[in-house]
Amino acid sequence: MEYTEKKPPLQEALEKFRVLDEKITHYSSLIGLADWDQKVMAPKKGRNVFAKAAGSLKTEVFKLSVSEEMGSLLETLSEQENESVLDVVTKAKVREYKTFYQKSKSIPADLFQEYAIITGQANDVWEEARDGNDFAKFLPYLEKIVEYKRKFAEIYGYENHPYDALLDEFEPGLTVEILDPLFAKLRESSINLLNRIQQQGKPTRHEIFEQSFPIDKQKEFNRLILPLIGFDLEAGRLDETVHPFAQSVNIGDVRLTTRYLENNVRSALFGTIHEAGHGIYEQQINPEFEESVLQSGTSFGIHESQSRFLENMVGRSKEFWTYFYPRLQEHFPAQLANVSLDEFYRAVNSVSPSFIRVEADELTYNLHIMLRYEIEKGLIAGEIEARDLPEIWNRKMQDYLGITPSTDTVGVLQDVHWSFGGIGYFPSYSLGNLYAAQILRTIEKDLPEFKSHIENGRFDVIHGWLKEKIHQYGKLYTPNELIVRVTGEELNADYLVEYLEKKYSEVYGLEEK
Amino acid sequence: MEYTEKKPPLQEALEKFRVLDEKITHYSSLIGLADWDQKVMAPKKGRNVFAKAAGSLKTEVFKLSVSEEMGSLLETLSEQENESVLDVVTKAKVREYKTFYQKSKSIPADLFQEYAIITGQANDVWEEARDGNDFAKFLPYLEKIVEYKRKFAEIYGYENHPYDALLDEFEPGLTVEILDPLFAKLRESSINLLNRIQQQGKPTRHEIFEQSFPIDKQKEFNRLILPLIGFDLEAGRLDETVHPFAQSVNIGDVRLTTRYLENNVRSALFGTIHEAGHGIYEQQINPEFEESVLQSGTSFGIHESQSRFLENMVGRSKEFWTYFYPRLQEHFPAQLANVSLDEFYRAVNSVSPSFIRVEADELTYNLHIMLRYEIEKGLIAGEIEARDLPEIWNRKMQDYLGITPSTDTVGVLQDVHWSFGGIGYFPSYSLGNLYAAQILRTIEKDLPEFKSHIENGRFDVIHGWLKEKIHQYGKLYTPNELIVRVTGEELNADYLVEYLEKKYSEVYGLEEK
Repeated sequence: MEYTEKKPPLQEALEKFRVLDEKITHYSSLIGLADWDQKVMAPKKGRNVFAKAAGSLKTEVFKLSVSEEMGSLLETLSEQENESVLDVVTKAKVREYKTFYQKSKSIPADLFQEYAIITGQANDVWEEARDGNDFAKFLPYLEKIVEYKRKFAEIYGYENHPYDALLDEFEPGLTVEILDPLFAKLRESSINLLNRIQQQGKPTRHEIFEQSFPIDKQKEFNRLILPLIGFDLEAGRLDETVHPFAQSVNIGDVRLTTRYLENNVRSALFGTIHEAGHGIYEQQINPEFEESVLQSGTSFGIHESQSRFLENMVGRSKEFWTYFYPRLQEHFPAQLANVSLDEFYRAVNSVSPSFIRVEADELTYNLHIMLRYEIEKGLIAGEIEARDLPEIWNRKMQDYLGITPSTDTVGVLQDVHWSFGGIGYFPSYSLGNLYAAQILRTIEKDLPEFKSHIENGRFDVIHGWLKEKIHQYGKLYTPNELIVRVTGEELNADYLVEYLEKKYSEVYGLEEK
Repeated sequence: MEYTEKKPPLQEALEKFRVLDEKITHYSSLIGLADWDQKVMAPKKGRNVFAKAAGSLKTEVFKLSVSEEMGSLLETLSEQENESVLDVVTKAKVREYKTFYQKSKSIPADLFQEYAIITGQANDVWEEARDGNDFAKFLPYLEKIVEYKRKFAEIYGYENHPYDALLDEFEPGLTVEILDPLFAKLRESSINLLNRIQQQGKPTRHEIFEQSFPIDKQKEFNRLILPLIGFDLEAGRLDETVHPFAQSVNIGDVRLTTRYLENNVRSALFGTIHEAGHGIYEQQINPEFEESVLQSGTSFGIHESQSRFLENMVGRSKEFWTYFYPRLQEHFPAQLANVSLDEFYRAVNSVSPSFIRVEADELTYNLHIMLRYEIEKGLIAGEIEARDLPEIWNRKMQDYLGITPSTDTVGVLQDVHWSFGGIGYFPSYSLGNLYAAQILRTIEKDLPEFKSHIENGRFDVIHGWLKEKIHQYGKLYTPNELIVRVTGEELNADYLVEYLEKKYSEVYGLEEK
């Protein structure tokens, strides 16, 4: 029959795939809201039972994502993919689901179950171990988790290094082969720069931040600047939590949190700007991708580049404070009356080695990350034993930062990541800085008035550029595709190295290298 | 084979039913949270898309509730029910699902679809009609909705009056035959009492509430009393919305809202106490019923009895203000310094006919309800035409309250209920008052120190009694079973009639009847 009314299988598959994608995205939206709510709003007595309710829906999302229906749709659509009959949007959706499907399907159910039980218990154990400075308590769990992660890496497969299989979960396509030289260059130059700052640097007035900054005034200032720097409060919220985060419910509903500390005005200020960077990315995604898997940022590293770009490249620039410092002084006249703009700018960019990653400055932060990267890589390769971590940690801290943690609590036990199995996650943070510096170089070329836009509060121009080049695409492009599209080349550490060198030479009055 | 390891079908059915019930309840918990969030927290730009996400999960809950699996489980378990091999808890769960299943299955899908479309559109039309005082605009929608509801009543079935089929949706087992005499008695006595108040009543100082009460001080006072009157803030929240409501997420997470008006201190105050009555009911349900369909209050009427009991019988009593008035005066010294406790108590209980139901006092409120009841009954019986409603409404307002609405906006168009098809809902409000007065009589017998408990702020004793007698049971008993268990008799209007007569004779210094 030439004229059949029966839909061709491809059309049918496309429609079924659209419906399934929409359903999964809808449920994920509800889960995102529920997670936000439990951290920000929920009264404590209901949380345990609610976790089970949210767990039911998470299980359903997982089941739908690895269902037979999904499998056969991905098969049908992947075949078509090669023949380029699918549009790029559908191809990107197929790519996203296929990666998850294949990884999830590849792990035998009982292995995954064992792993889920261990990571389910490990968080509490880690918290106790950290609070009691008792690495031995956490060690058996860490050993198990590393063991499972090594097994997963073998199952997922890799070309050169088993850690590649884990990196890929957070930054698709990233490998040790790519990362090692990038980090080597960054490590060397960062240590060198840090030494020069410590030896020749002109002191900053960082102690101005040790004054008391009343919290209600801090809140006022944070609420004042949030919309001015480009976050749309009609499509989002700002609340408070101990650990700040950004959570997208959908493109029109992106929720940030920050943390106010009376004796540390920087905490909320740069926390808010950082999370706003994540938030503006989510708010500027193409509405056509809404209700689909493409409706959020493309990778951990690219997401982090947007938060770091706004926090550091914009938010810690001289131009930013040229615009905002008079307003900050109005809010805190007693604290800042005798602090000049230049002194304030230099204080904001104080560099000082410290034990805790999340409190580290822009320069030393990457050294914290590289230390973790090297440890993770060694654990997964079987070259490092988990039991040796306290010693290795402290030695590397001494080598890179010149300080040795007084306890494991402020050393190897400080981060939550390993307890939930997030091995491969840490590099994202420094990737964010690397991407951000490379993007900065491009935007400065595209917008020669970049600095004066900041100085004049024209953040709309900057976000317009980011939207056009990056944000609108959501998950359409992989991180590597995106950075090449935006900047014309693969990730290159030179930009961050040069940026740090230039900025901190100026801040600390260093001689030319 | 005598010794088979295969589970008997009943055990299997019980386990499957438990799992299905838990899943539906989990999803409903998430939907409850999502509904709360969209009214209280969500930024406006995300709401339309989020409504679709929540709609997906609501559709799934509906599908699960009317699924073939549910049908066959209910069949298996209902058969067992007669042989009393099931415990009362399972029987109650079966009853709840069976009612919904049968009603939902009985309506042909296309008929329900048409109805869903009409009610989906009617809310916006009603809002426009109300705001524009344009009843004709809403009329075609109202006519359609009445037509569908009449069809549904025929499909659901009834013994005597078609309206019974609709009442049953809100108050299982309730009929016109039961309600007519209860309301007749209440109507007659209320009109009589209102007339006597208007003719002989000693004026109250109700104008004290027309002063300005700063909102921050109101908030402080509401937050002060909420835990004192028995609402557990570790198992709940208090937020703000234009239309106050209570939403349970689970037993440990019950969320209330209230509304602060600077020129009407009563709005937030009694709104908060009212919603706390709903909330404490939900917080005191037996935790064994959590994650099951029994985990909330048994009917609209019983729920309303708990909010009205706390708002009116407790919250507008002399004893309540003996305890709280000094604290209120501390919060508002300028406004209340020259108002005595007795004057305040009388002002709180001022009676005055008014157009708007939600602003009505305790006495005239029921007349607003009975007017709506009579109209709905007539519409469903085909004795009243929708087009005649403005005239009928205004005539009844004149007959019962002695006032005629100046516009349909403050008359027949004031309530949202008909626009979403909630015909049969209104009686719940007065049922709440009737139940509450009957419960009051019982608690006063059981706790002879009832009044002094209030006077001494011992709300824990009162809530302990309500928990033991009512709250703990959740949906275990039907409303009629519950009221008979608690008070020893079926619903009886005498208690409310006597309560109102006694209270308002005293408030207004009326002569004995």
